[in-house]
Amino acid sequence: MEIMPTEIESRICNLQQKLIEQATDGAIILLQSDLFYFTGTVQNSYLYIPASGQPVLMVKKSLARGRQESPLKNIVAIKTPKQIPEILAAYGYNSFSKIGLELDVVPFNLYKSYQTIFPATELIDISPAIKAIRAVKSVVEIELMRDALAVIDQAFLAVPSFLHAGMSELELAALFEAEMRKRGYAGPCKMRAFNQDFFFGNICTGSSGFYPNYFDGPVGGQGASAAQPQGAGWKKINRNEVIYIDYSSIVKGYTGDQTRIFCIGELSPKLVKAYEDALLIEAEIVKSCKPGTLAEEPYLLAVKLAAELGYQDNFMGYKPDQVKFVGHGIGLELDEWPILAKGMKTPIVPGMTFALEPKFVFPEGAIGIEDSFVMTETGPQYLSITPQVITYV
Amino acid sequence: MEIMPTEIESRICNLQQKLIEQATDGAIILLQSDLFYFTGTVQNSYLYIPASGQPVLMVKKSLARGRQESPLKNIVAIKTPKQIPEILAAYGYNSFSKIGLELDVVPFNLYKSYQTIFPATELIDISPAIKAIRAVKSVVEIELMRDALAVIDQAFLAVPSFLHAGMSELELAALFEAEMRKRGYAGPCKMRAFNQDFFFGNICTGSSGFYPNYFDGPVGGQGASAAQPQGAGWKKINRNEVIYIDYSSIVKGYTGDQTRIFCIGELSPKLVKAYEDALLIEAEIVKSCKPGTLAEEPYLLAVKLAAELGYQDNFMGYKPDQVKFVGHGIGLELDEWPILAKGMKTPIVPGMTFALEPKFVFPEGAIGIEDSFVMTETGPQYLSITPQVITYV
Repeated sequence: MEIMPTEIESRICNLQQKLIEQATDGAIILLQSDLFYFTGTVQNSYLYIPASGQPVLMVKKSLARGRQESPLKNIVAIKTPKQIPEILAAYGYNSFSKIGLELDVVPFNLYKSYQTIFPATELIDISPAIKAIRAVKSVVEIELMRDALAVIDQAFLAVPSFLHAGMSELELAALFEAEMRKRGYAGPCKMRAFNQDFFFGNICTGSSGFYPNYFDGPVGGQGASAAQPQGAGWKKINRNEVIYIDYSSIVKGYTGDQTRIFCIGELSPKLVKAYEDALLIEAEIVKSCKPGTLAEEPYLLAVKLAAELGYQDNFMGYKPDQVKFVGHGIGLELDEWPILAKGMKTPIVPGMTFALEPKFVFPEGAIGIEDSFVMTETGPQYLSITPQVITYV
Repeated sequence: MEIMPTEIESRICNLQQKLIEQATDGAIILLQSDLFYFTGTVQNSYLYIPASGQPVLMVKKSLARGRQESPLKNIVAIKTPKQIPEILAAYGYNSFSKIGLELDVVPFNLYKSYQTIFPATELIDISPAIKAIRAVKSVVEIELMRDALAVIDQAFLAVPSFLHAGMSELELAALFEAEMRKRGYAGPCKMRAFNQDFFFGNICTGSSGFYPNYFDGPVGGQGASAAQPQGAGWKKINRNEVIYIDYSSIVKGYTGDQTRIFCIGELSPKLVKAYEDALLIEAEIVKSCKPGTLAEEPYLLAVKLAAELGYQDNFMGYKPDQVKFVGHGIGLELDEWPILAKGMKTPIVPGMTFALEPKFVFPEGAIGIEDSFVMTETGPQYLSITPQVITYV
């Protein structure tokens, strides 16, 4: 499925409504994921969306490709952002008392250069409006996420064909990633948060899952070195230990996110029980969620259930490094709205897509489940298609 | 080789000297690559380097791992950056009239939150000082880059074992990347520039090399979709076309960068000649470079030679999408100083590491060479070890 010009139009229309509500003359969109959302291209460019009227896409490199990929009417060449005011003037956009920028991601120096270009203009943060719009997906976006999840499903199904005791986590990662790459995985995985560098996902085997990590997630892995301390590492994979694979799948820009568990041999009854308890928590969340459920409710329910089951020190990390969420929005980025975390009062409405990931960390390893969902009129629907079983090899 | 505590000390000392020169009380370091450089860890943390005295590393997650990885003396827990002033006060750091931040990468909203934490402090951009210090590598850093280049060499040597006509660029990328991943490649590839998302590198075969691209490089590839339009794509690889592989290799945080050319069958005499001319340009640059050569000189020489050889419309991209550099610094990031581009007056001094990449783009494909170098007292020394030949399969 492809995104149609009418869909791009309606996305722009949604932002224009927010611009009018905020009495903002227009927004200048710079970030690749937002550019793609509103134009269909990520060519090096500057997009002006006025509160009313046609947007103008000013492309530095490559203009030819920008025109080929985007259905927008006004696509013009630009050499430097200093030309933005004169280009916009030619389209009749002259008055800028307030312009929105993505101030959650635009570096300070870049902000300052825009303040120089628009000296009399107040530059405000338009990213909350963009995040709110992007959180609710269209039918086509949901289909694209299904495609991404079909790719990761193929990779999970292939694991038994190459997993063996004695290989390193990095060797397993290389083969798992290759299964996705040849089927169209094209990263990098985009995080909107500053400094949360992320590479593919995590493979943690046995004690690696217990390794503390900078990453704002329940499990981070040991990584290959202190410089890149996330994901698969040099540890050899042993028989009878938990093999935890939590990966992103990015196809045509859209992200699927999923975790499955493997084992060569047998898992301890304690870990098998923990896996079943993670499934139970996921199922209870799915049952309790309805359109309008607040984003913090699944987290609060999960924490309550985890404590009742005796996992208060193991849920979403090992004490004291426990993270305070049980899921997150997914789409063009891995950290979209809604964030299923304490204090989040956003209602989860139909069309929102998110990953649910109740997980436990023990000294002997990390275990749990993660699936991708879309909220529907009747509750969350699974987008992930891989069976929810531990695969024994 | 490992980075020793004394090396971390001397790096901090270099920054302290710059802080004193700029009459700045201290710097708060946030970006992963800078954190790693000055501490040895990238755990989620805030590093204060005072103009004089011991630095303080405040770690949010994971404190245990931060302490394990960094040789710094003062490593303490922090929950929120709001605590920074009180934590620093406990170490006797109370007066902050001027603090340096990495304002080239710190998002505006984050900057604003630091301005709230330090309301009476002027926040200045410390990144030029950091970039200048980081540009000159130590013996250990150069050895780490050799290690990264040994890994990519293994991947290039393996190509004939899996390259075949009819496979897609993505299939080739999957196998090439797997060769590096299992040997410790651990990304993501770090770019300091805003919005220059980059994934592994580029595999372009035949006309893919001609595909216009957003990326600020001579060749970008078609990519897998408009959303991720960089690197390998769905195109099938044919006999007798140029197979261009330009990849990063990141091992223990340090980056090697290299391009090699492959072909199944035979290349046209025109492309073979272009390859030899690229080698000639690289060799001429190497011959002409001495300590003190300005960073723009290799570019100006390359442009002159390319024009003399008749490639003015093909050098570093196809007209009008030609980029204005012939090389770039490499280290913990792919876009370090020195930038070998027009107008760059930085002298290239011993210890600076960079990639040189004279390349040509034609409608039938991209061709050229890229190697990694370190400037020595007698001129640039090759760090790349892969033979400079077209490999025919």
